[in-house]
Amino acid sequence: MKVAKLYGARDVRIEQAPAPEPGPGEVALKVRAVGICGSDVHYYKEGGIGDATVEQPLIWGHEFSAEIADLGTGVTGLHVGQAVAVDPARPCGHCEFCLEGKSNLCPEVVFAGSPGVDGAMSEYMVYPAKYCYPLPENLDYAEGAILEPLGVAIHAVDLGKIRVGQMAAVLGCGPIGLLTIQVVRVAGASRIFATEPLGYRLEAAKRAGATDTYNPQQQNIVEAILNATKGRGVDVVFECAGAQETVDQAMRIAKPGGTVVLVGIPSVDTTTFTASVARRKGLNIKMSRRMKEVYPRAMALAARGMVDLRSIITHRLPIERAAEAFALLEHYRDNVIKVIIEL
Amino acid sequence: MKVAKLYGARDVRIEQAPAPEPGPGEVALKVRAVGICGSDVHYYKEGGIGDATVEQPLIWGHEFSAEIADLGTGVTGLHVGQAVAVDPARPCGHCEFCLEGKSNLCPEVVFAGSPGVDGAMSEYMVYPAKYCYPLPENLDYAEGAILEPLGVAIHAVDLGKIRVGQMAAVLGCGPIGLLTIQVVRVAGASRIFATEPLGYRLEAAKRAGATDTYNPQQQNIVEAILNATKGRGVDVVFECAGAQETVDQAMRIAKPGGTVVLVGIPSVDTTTFTASVARRKGLNIKMSRRMKEVYPRAMALAARGMVDLRSIITHRLPIERAAEAFALLEHYRDNVIKVIIEL
Amino acid sequence: MKVAKLYGARDVRIEQAPAPEPGPGEVALKVRAVGICGSDVHYYKEGGIGDATVEQPLIWGHEFSAEIADLGTGVTGLHVGQAVAVDPARPCGHCEFCLEGKSNLCPEVVFAGSPGVDGAMSEYMVYPAKYCYPLPENLDYAEGAILEPLGVAIHAVDLGKIRVGQMAAVLGCGPIGLLTIQVVRVAGASRIFATEPLGYRLEAAKRAGATDTYNPQQQNIVEAILNATKGRGVDVVFECAGAQETVDQAMRIAKPGGTVVLVGIPSVDTTTFTASVARRKGLNIKMSRRMKEVYPRAMALAARGMVDLRSIITHRLPIERAAEAFALLEHYRDNVIKVIIEL
Amino acid sequence: MKVAKLYGARDVRIEQAPAPEPGPGEVALKVRAVGICGSDVHYYKEGGIGDATVEQPLIWGHEFSAEIADLGTGVTGLHVGQAVAVDPARPCGHCEFCLEGKSNLCPEVVFAGSPGVDGAMSEYMVYPAKYCYPLPENLDYAEGAILEPLGVAIHAVDLGKIRVGQMAAVLGCGPIGLLTIQVVRVAGASRIFATEPLGYRLEAAKRAGATDTYNPQQQNIVEAILNATKGRGVDVVFECAGAQETVDQAMRIAKPGGTVVLVGIPSVDTTTFTASVARRKGLNIKMSRRMKEVYPRAMALAARGMVDLRSIITHRLPIERAAEAFALLEHYRDNVIKVIIEL
Repeated sequence: MKVAKLYGARDVRIEQAPAPEPGPGEVALKVRAVGICGSDVHYYKEGGIGDATVEQPLIWGHEFSAEIADLGTGVTGLHVGQAVAVDPARPCGHCEFCLEGKSNLCPEVVFAGSPGVDGAMSEYMVYPAKYCYPLPENLDYAEGAILEPLGVAIHAVDLGKIRVGQMAAVLGCGPIGLLTIQVVRVAGASRIFATEPLGYRLEAAKRAGATDTYNPQQQNIVEAILNATKGRGVDVVFECAGAQETVDQAMRIAKPGGTVVLVGIPSVDTTTFTASVARRKGLNIKMSRRMKEVYPRAMALAARGMVDLRSIITHRLPIERAAEAFALLEHYRDNVIKVIIEL
Repeated sequence: MKVAKLYGARDVRIEQAPAPEPGPGEVALKVRAVGICGSDVHYYKEGGIGDATVEQPLIWGHEFSAEIADLGTGVTGLHVGQAVAVDPARPCGHCEFCLEGKSNLCPEVVFAGSPGVDGAMSEYMVYPAKYCYPLPENLDYAEGAILEPLGVAIHAVDLGKIRVGQMAAVLGCGPIGLLTIQVVRVAGASRIFATEPLGYRLEAAKRAGATDTYNPQQQNIVEAILNATKGRGVDVVFECAGAQETVDQAMRIAKPGGTVVLVGIPSVDTTTFTASVARRKGLNIKMSRRMKEVYPRAMALAARGMVDLRSIITHRLPIERAAEAFALLEHYRDNVIKVIIEL
Repeated sequence: MKVAKLYGARDVRIEQAPAPEPGPGEVALKVRAVGICGSDVHYYKEGGIGDATVEQPLIWGHEFSAEIADLGTGVTGLHVGQAVAVDPARPCGHCEFCLEGKSNLCPEVVFAGSPGVDGAMSEYMVYPAKYCYPLPENLDYAEGAILEPLGVAIHAVDLGKIRVGQMAAVLGCGPIGLLTIQVVRVAGASRIFATEPLGYRLEAAKRAGATDTYNPQQQNIVEAILNATKGRGVDVVFECAGAQETVDQAMRIAKPGGTVVLVGIPSVDTTTFTASVARRKGLNIKMSRRMKEVYPRAMALAARGMVDLRSIITHRLPIERAAEAFALLEHYRDNVIKVIIEL
Repeated sequence: MKVAKLYGARDVRIEQAPAPEPGPGEVALKVRAVGICGSDVHYYKEGGIGDATVEQPLIWGHEFSAEIADLGTGVTGLHVGQAVAVDPARPCGHCEFCLEGKSNLCPEVVFAGSPGVDGAMSEYMVYPAKYCYPLPENLDYAEGAILEPLGVAIHAVDLGKIRVGQMAAVLGCGPIGLLTIQVVRVAGASRIFATEPLGYRLEAAKRAGATDTYNPQQQNIVEAILNATKGRGVDVVFECAGAQETVDQAMRIAKPGGTVVLVGIPSVDTTTFTASVARRKGLNIKMSRRMKEVYPRAMALAARGMVDLRSIITHRLPIERAAEAFALLEHYRDNVIKVIIEL
């Protein structure tokens, strides 16, 4: 079978490997769709994220859906040919963090497509059956692969604890930002401010549900949003750009007592903001890390048509063109938002 | 001017009284619409609620909207002829409960239409200007009067802390139950169970957004909802009927670790449920009391068309027919949901 | 080896059984101390709790400490002869409840000494090593057995979310009530009200840290506590008696916006309180179910001498006198608080 | 009467002014003790905090106690000669922030001793009676002045939501850090790590209840604390130094899912930390701003001897030597911790 590996920064190779066999409780998956995530782009551009570097060739890919190709012994409730979405995270379930309801912080987690753990960029893979969720009928495989970033957005919105009728702001309208806008809209935000320098993404933000959109290259977004709220500020701000300046903007845009959720992964490994701004407003700053136990809720939203996952998919490429996918994303070419590798 | 007074159980009288003059910081309101609330029906039928009895003739009415008829000195931001919704609660702002964010529990609160405080069932009234909110253009006066019960529903949903994609149940589909269904839908519930013995109200529940509706006279609703959730139960249950049996049903329907919000005002002043059911599931039971500081959010939802307030208004009557309004509500005649007294 | 079994209500038998062998990851425990819990007394008196009845002979006992007698393969970090406290609860670690941080509500939990699962009333037992915690040097085996009810008290106090300097009330001063008083004192309560009809237990409450104690047979405790707080009420109330009247008292004693934690297991399977009292105060009522992941914290408190576990142990009996232990507890004879079976 | 004014950076002048008369609801206070706060030192050294600069001569002083010298009309419950502690914050009680329970963020707050509002550095002042709390008998005036910083510490610990038996760290052992150590101890922390470069303050930290103390000039405190917790980290970390490096240390010391409370006011108006460290641990970062409604709880702790306020008072000076107080604090001379101006 074909496998795509990242050997280091900007070094993607397609190789052949033997197809694996499922053990007890496992299934063999015929991978059908893999999304390229911003974190994958970090691996591609920088060969790592922060101090987590790619030492061994990495089979990346943690946003994926698949068809069940074979069942290991003892697997029930799934059948060959079935379409499934797959949770890339397998927490240990027994450490104090798991049992405190923070399985996203489990130090023993096995996370597909992270250094040391094979991801989905291969024709076949084996996986524990219990992390495979039957795909709702109204979703195709590419949409199934978007359930993972949808889960990231749901986790961020959970952290923000927004209440119906409150106002939200989303800074940065890449795939996670756009999904966060959708989830915040579903959560009943009465007004959603979105900021983004790329015009086509700002247009996508409007379609996702943003009520007020601003391009930071054309205006001072802090002034604009404070003016629009009569100086009060916004209840919950989601920083989804991973940039230095958006973190500080988030603090300035938030209302006194508001919550700032930092979702974006910064290229420069430093978070900086103006102390007196955040302190005087007594802000609550939450660092968002992946997600936890949100697949059932993500699937419920998608199955009932409450979110539109297809709207963020701009490109579909075969596995052979994986390197091209990174090039698109690195340079924001061709109005790219989300690239799906189809197998 | 005309004033409607409740002299005791089932004793409504229309009287004449002099119109009041606004003092500093106050406005004179020409009352335009007053909703009849379930608590008003308690006063009407029983002459009180629990141990709060009507000792003096009560000008009831706490769900109301009005037109500004005159401005006292020092009032800014409002003008004569303006349509406003009015918050019936005036908390003291300085007790420990207010300053802990629980102004709905302020022991010094002045609450329009409760024993000792005049309500809105009069042609004119004076009111502090700061509790008068300009009505959004897309709302008429009758809808403006529904903002108060909408606020009650928002407060109940706030207590329930439901998260996007979770499941909710609403037991009892009177005005508060129907508005709770709407707010829970706005909050992103992926599935909303509703139960109600009156067929026409169950139909209204569907229109409000309930995905699964049950008539407890036709089936065992506990079994039905547990079956529908494969035995798991529902994340958040709102008891809006104020009945003995629905409280116990709520405990049985909730998932382990779930939340039950008791919103309904019971006729019999006792709350009873099966201890082992609630204890083994470690339930969180929240007593909902009026609302607090939700007018801006209620108005945002209504102004943006996220909720439909008109859908629950079934009758509009002049002040002279106030007693008739109670009769309709007491006997659930004529497919009544919400009666608005128009002045 | 000797084993004590409960064959039904009031039917305790001592039998012989073969000693078990530890499997991989398990240890063989020489049981050294077993506490008799109120829930065990329910099994003894009524043959069950609520609808959970003892169908098979039950080896009860979930409060226990032991000496490591043998190690199964793969066990590290423990050694033969070591004194350990043992967590009776083994949650699955993979259901939604475990992963939401509510492992105490895990439907797959294996709980020692509950119907279908052998408890500690036997000379030897095998147990997974990871649930065995080395006993701090300053604790003897009997104190080690009290770590479990201490954990129950910690869980109840966690639910109550009391803050330093607030006031608490504990209704019912049996072992759980007395430990709750201690934990609430450690949590910084500035005033602790305790109520209890048995005089010797009320004395124990004072020693545990209660600042104000009341005997409900001698005075109206609701009036007394409301007077002592100038009518305001208490921030957090813990109902530890499992009686009908204490539940209603708890609601009346709590302040507006306060929290009532229901910890006691009622003999009559109904919880009842006055609706208008709880509703007008907007109370938060929490059903406490066992505990979750509190062993490390329980051990830290005991190891540092912040709680006194020995103070509640009034009787130590050998396994042969197990039936006598129940008789003591059923009739509150001989100033009994906690009986430890020593092996 | 004598008044001390700050005319700008390092410019303290003692002047004469007429004594004020109390209006309705007010009292005249004979000020008896005023603490010098770190924020006062910021005003003294830099002529402001962040972008809040001293434009007019400032009568500083917000930590104070006084004797009632005269009563305005309508004041009840206080008498001439009575000793009182005074809450320097007078929130409006009617804005959305006050009514959401965040009166410390009230934009209309009148805060004694901040730019534009006279503080306590004068022999007499008038004050609304309702903010004057009778001093418990066991506290002298100097201790009464410490109730305000104690309140700041209580608010920080409230934000940290520490639970009994958890571990805390306090970085920086000035007056706020030392009081935070005391409050965290009262809240039931089983282990309290403290770091501080000044040896005499580290000794004071031990006396306040720190179980493990470290001097960052002598060792790597991040390594030391992570080693002491076997790599896990600390549940709640309080940054009380206001330094760049302690903020980053706080993130590194916290456990995954832990909480970092930023209490210190930084001299350089930038907060910076390593993004990947905080993000991977999914930290919750809370900016602490003054305090809210904690006077009754602060007084309860002090009245019952649960905290020792006298322990942090190192100097008592008359008003004439106010400038000297700043010099002591600016240069950490003479083992200074807290200076009280006595009048």
